[in-house]
Amino acid sequence: MIIYFNGQYIDEDSCYVSPYDRGFLFSDGIYEVVRYTGKKFFEFDSHFTRLDTGLNFLKIKFSQKDKIPDICEELIKKNDLSDKEALIYIQITRGISKPRNHIFPDMNTLPTVFINATLLPKHDKELENGVNIILDEDIRWSRCNIKTISLIPNVLARQKAKERNAAETVFVREGFITEGTHTNFCGVNNGCLFTAPLSNYVLPGVTRKVVLDICKKINIPFKEEFIKEKDIKLFEEFMLISTTMDVTPVIQIENLQINNGKPGMITGKIQKEYFNILNSV
Amino acid sequence: MIIYFNGQYIDEDSCYVSPYDRGFLFSDGIYEVVRYTGKKFFEFDSHFTRLDTGLNFLKIKFSQKDKIPDICEELIKKNDLSDKEALIYIQITRGISKPRNHIFPDMNTLPTVFINATLLPKHDKELENGVNIILDEDIRWSRCNIKTISLIPNVLARQKAKERNAAETVFVREGFITEGTHTNFCGVNNGCLFTAPLSNYVLPGVTRKVVLDICKKINIPFKEEFIKEKDIKLFEEFMLISTTMDVTPVIQIENLQINNGKPGMITGKIQKEYFNILNSV
Repeated sequence: MIIYFNGQYIDEDSCYVSPYDRGFLFSDGIYEVVRYTGKKFFEFDSHFTRLDTGLNFLKIKFSQKDKIPDICEELIKKNDLSDKEALIYIQITRGISKPRNHIFPDMNTLPTVFINATLLPKHDKELENGVNIILDEDIRWSRCNIKTISLIPNVLARQKAKERNAAETVFVREGFITEGTHTNFCGVNNGCLFTAPLSNYVLPGVTRKVVLDICKKINIPFKEEFIKEKDIKLFEEFMLISTTMDVTPVIQIENLQINNGKPGMITGKIQKEYFNILNSV
Repeated sequence: MIIYFNGQYIDEDSCYVSPYDRGFLFSDGIYEVVRYTGKKFFEFDSHFTRLDTGLNFLKIKFSQKDKIPDICEELIKKNDLSDKEALIYIQITRGISKPRNHIFPDMNTLPTVFINATLLPKHDKELENGVNIILDEDIRWSRCNIKTISLIPNVLARQKAKERNAAETVFVREGFITEGTHTNFCGVNNGCLFTAPLSNYVLPGVTRKVVLDICKKINIPFKEEFIKEKDIKLFEEFMLISTTMDVTPVIQIENLQINNGKPGMITGKIQKEYFNILNSV
């Protein structure tokens, strides 16, 4: 595949990062994953705004920011993805500094920009039949609203899910369910959708915003309130939502079957409307 | 400088990491910093044991681990550091996996190994006169005992110190002082040394162990108990301890002068004994 790296479009196998890149030494950077539908980027502005929030939080000065949309378009073209479903991955780090030192390098240090485009992995079966998930202690830092590449707890938790034949691990912080390793999490109780409120413990998910807008549109009541782990049994439905998982029904949490192991009705309604919006031109 | 990268000794400017290295994408790796005194490595085994703990925690399989001591020796020689004070930096990541996916790659994926040797930055003035520090909320994850490269909160906090003309930021978690961004933290109250107990909130510092051994040896009573932020005023002395900062007196915390702005007596005794041990052959 052709990727974009610091101003150049090159083959990914010819792309090399310095070992002194602060992304490699300190995870000193942010990322975004954007959906391309085969016709357009979905919610590009929302991802772009969040990218900007991350850069500001980390105080990374990136003057070429406004070129990103064109680069993404170009990568879709160069990789023959124009009529395919794809994902754009954007990573920006604080750049190279030597010798290794936590302190920010010289103000003129150029950020490292790595962007690629890949085919969207299919997950039709999961969307239709639902998935199992497990729960795990939320050991992450307390700025989960910032999409940094400091992802080691997410890596470990996602691997744990895989080893237990589950599709995702959802984090629990002091009894409250926050979100998954790469998804937001929703439940339905008495017909009302619940998802964790925006705070420093939860990523402000782009799909989360889309889903809440759908709830408004098709009159599903919703509350931005934490679901407590101990209350899981009271809920009729659960779903995972994200750019890569769309709206995926959850049919089992640990050993507890949800909705008799079938995707829930409200989840189905939201999923249907979500794909309507995603695929509208 | 000549560095070691995946089996080769090469010039650092010719060393390139794949953008698909999990160190770059996920901070999926660990590191160590080892002191070379100009004659020997200091506490090499302690660093090596902690490296191993980190690899086990992350489940990174690294069969070439036992070669690391020889590689470190070789780097000292190749960079003409044999009679100089130096630092060895060792970083091991889970290696390259493509496409990007949180889940661990194929079991046969080779870890990425990056090791360099650099001159020890001098800090004699700080050792003699002491330093100012600031306090900040401990926003890090809850596995601070594992020395991963997920260091973004440390980067941000250390930069904050620099911007406030301080040498270090020391973290406070729910009122309890844990440690600095790259140091452990000790206080002296009524002649007794206090430092945070080992737990998942504190790195088991190699220098911390050395300092506690010194306390035993020269009869300084010590307690592995948290210092509370609200109790700082009750302490006579404070010090930062680490491989790169040795035993550095703290003479001011935020706006509070410690010991009339002079390095404390017990800090001095420990510092003296520390350098005796460090420099003994």
